[in-house]
Amino acid sequence: MTEGCPETATGDTVLPVEVDYDYGRVPSALFSPAGGPAARGAGLDRWAPLLPPLAAPGLGEGGTPLVELEAGVYVKDESRNPTWSHKDRLNRCTTSAAVGVGAPGIVVASSGNHGASAAAYAARAGLPCVVFTGPDLPPAVDAFLGAYGAVVLPVPWEARWPLMRQVVDRVGLHPVSNLTPTHTGHAFGPEGYKTIAYEIFLDIGVPGAVFVPTGYGELLYGVWKGFTELRRLGLTDRLPRMVACESAAAAPLAKAVREGLPAAHVAVEPTDAYAIVAAVSGYRGVVAVRDSGGEVVTLDDGQLRAARDELARAGLWAELSAAAGLAGLRAVGGGAEGPVVCVSTSSGFKDRSVGTLTTERVAGDWESVSRRLRAAGLHG
Amino acid sequence: MTEGCPETATGDTVLPVEVDYDYGRVPSALFSPAGGPAARGAGLDRWAPLLPPLAAPGLGEGGTPLVELEAGVYVKDESRNPTWSHKDRLNRCTTSAAVGVGAPGIVVASSGNHGASAAAYAARAGLPCVVFTGPDLPPAVDAFLGAYGAVVLPVPWEARWPLMRQVVDRVGLHPVSNLTPTHTGHAFGPEGYKTIAYEIFLDIGVPGAVFVPTGYGELLYGVWKGFTELRRLGLTDRLPRMVACESAAAAPLAKAVREGLPAAHVAVEPTDAYAIVAAVSGYRGVVAVRDSGGEVVTLDDGQLRAARDELARAGLWAELSAAAGLAGLRAVGGGAEGPVVCVSTSSGFKDRSVGTLTTERVAGDWESVSRRLRAAGLHG
Repeated sequence: MTEGCPETATGDTVLPVEVDYDYGRVPSALFSPAGGPAARGAGLDRWAPLLPPLAAPGLGEGGTPLVELEAGVYVKDESRNPTWSHKDRLNRCTTSAAVGVGAPGIVVASSGNHGASAAAYAARAGLPCVVFTGPDLPPAVDAFLGAYGAVVLPVPWEARWPLMRQVVDRVGLHPVSNLTPTHTGHAFGPEGYKTIAYEIFLDIGVPGAVFVPTGYGELLYGVWKGFTELRRLGLTDRLPRMVACESAAAAPLAKAVREGLPAAHVAVEPTDAYAIVAAVSGYRGVVAVRDSGGEVVTLDDGQLRAARDELARAGLWAELSAAAGLAGLRAVGGGAEGPVVCVSTSSGFKDRSVGTLTTERVAGDWESVSRRLRAAGLHG
Repeated sequence: MTEGCPETATGDTVLPVEVDYDYGRVPSALFSPAGGPAARGAGLDRWAPLLPPLAAPGLGEGGTPLVELEAGVYVKDESRNPTWSHKDRLNRCTTSAAVGVGAPGIVVASSGNHGASAAAYAARAGLPCVVFTGPDLPPAVDAFLGAYGAVVLPVPWEARWPLMRQVVDRVGLHPVSNLTPTHTGHAFGPEGYKTIAYEIFLDIGVPGAVFVPTGYGELLYGVWKGFTELRRLGLTDRLPRMVACESAAAAPLAKAVREGLPAAHVAVEPTDAYAIVAAVSGYRGVVAVRDSGGEVVTLDDGQLRAARDELARAGLWAELSAAAGLAGLRAVGGGAEGPVVCVSTSSGFKDRSVGTLTTERVAGDWESVSRRLRAAGLHG
């Protein structure tokens, strides 16, 4: 079931498959604050009773810190994962599906974090991994994907999904990214992401709102689902507002919510926020925003850069797209309803601008150095 | 006391300052497996009773996972820290010293992880940070250091320490890297590192041996000190063998141990393992190796690359220098004395080779793609 729900699909809209559990059988001690002896660094295995079978071995994903940026504003720093992004939570679960069905390998279309994470989990499971990227692969991303031994195939943009489909059909590899006309993705993806909600709950309880960088809306929905499960388990009666933070250069979820559609297509304008650019949304995003009483915020690159710089000046260097959560908070405000959490998805090393040297050398004498110190306001 | 012990220093050898505690006052629950409600993601604050005053705010450092590479062989993945290296444990403590003495800022000489980590913790504490780097700053490291707002000063190599001394004396910034002829570093550095031993102990108890990438030996000593404290607190009667893993291009600790010296100087040969290259060692390294019945292993770049590739093929992309721990294990063997831990200090993004694109583009047709798949053994 990697292509959405076969029963509800119409010609141009496909709805995602939802994973359900027997919640009555979840051990009551699962959410005790200490979490049992295996909690710290145990990865998603800590949450196994509420996840699909974790057939693929883990890398200690999840368990990321919640850093207090200012009173009542927290950053969930997902750059502390095995491949330094939130995608590791998804790929632990999707690679487990591949192992579970006995697939000879996995395939993914991605130009960044998703591909590298899939490559890492495939490597850990001893499976081959094929990554279709766009044609202009930055050298750092090439090194990142290649390190794990993935077969990296930089192809023209428009060819990525047709080729992925052929690799699935002809080679039998298990797809861990989307294959459908509107986004459905892998059913196990949001299952991995929902553990973010569990962790936030253990750290500070249920916040008033969660601001989430949003491309296809899988992360947004996963975090939302996690909180709804906590309510279903009787652990809380509160739920947070989910605020989807999209790039203004491509905001299909904003369009879908505005027009009352399950999913929408949009044109993509230029932006440096490559990791959250999506030309199409999926129904999961609509559900999270609608059912939580949330909203969609669209952010231009200037707002994203301001939020990225704000995070860095607090000691957290995030990728531009990863700063969308904080940028969303700064755009619409928040906090009246209790503490807020901004999810920061990935590290600053992943940005394309990282390859440009900007600092000038200094001669080795004290006069040259003290001139630079004075320019920085540091020395009389 | 940032320049070693003033009483025992001779003309060319300076001994480090050691931090001692009133161990009788350590709460007995500190090492309970669950660690209390604030354990997960709480950063070094979790261990405050055994650390110097943590006057500078944290970023959720430490609490990194121990990933089982094979039966009895564990990797302590320090790339999960706030700036993706072990240095964050040190800088939380050294920046706290700067805050504690009311310094107007901090200064560090580093071309990589140490400088970026210092910059992040200074930013978090609201202090300026000056980083002296070598003249050939890779663009990614420039972006990394600059993101946190540090004053980055690329100067000729030989000028770094004299200039740092002047910044300390004339501007009053607090030094968080070494200032002495043999390495002493900051007294609080190993205090941060020793928390690695505490975490390993909670996860698997006391291992038979710990393999540590070794430059100046601060990390090696810190981990050793942590285990000795566990014994002193009556929590164990075992101690691990400490194996220092140096680059063969510069192995001052190997020389010091071989010749019975407290510290040694060596010439530096060319190597890609820039993060563990040290022309001088310090007494701490000798103590850790001698008192633990350990040894020093020297590794050439080929051995380091093989270990780096082995880690990546298990899903952990480490910096070349960071793979020295596993390379050391592969060089000398281990495991007869119980499980072994290889510390992996930092992420693959930090390597200089990351800027080189190696993967060729593929045309968008199936034939071109399937040729590449066949070359990778993936498709008949």
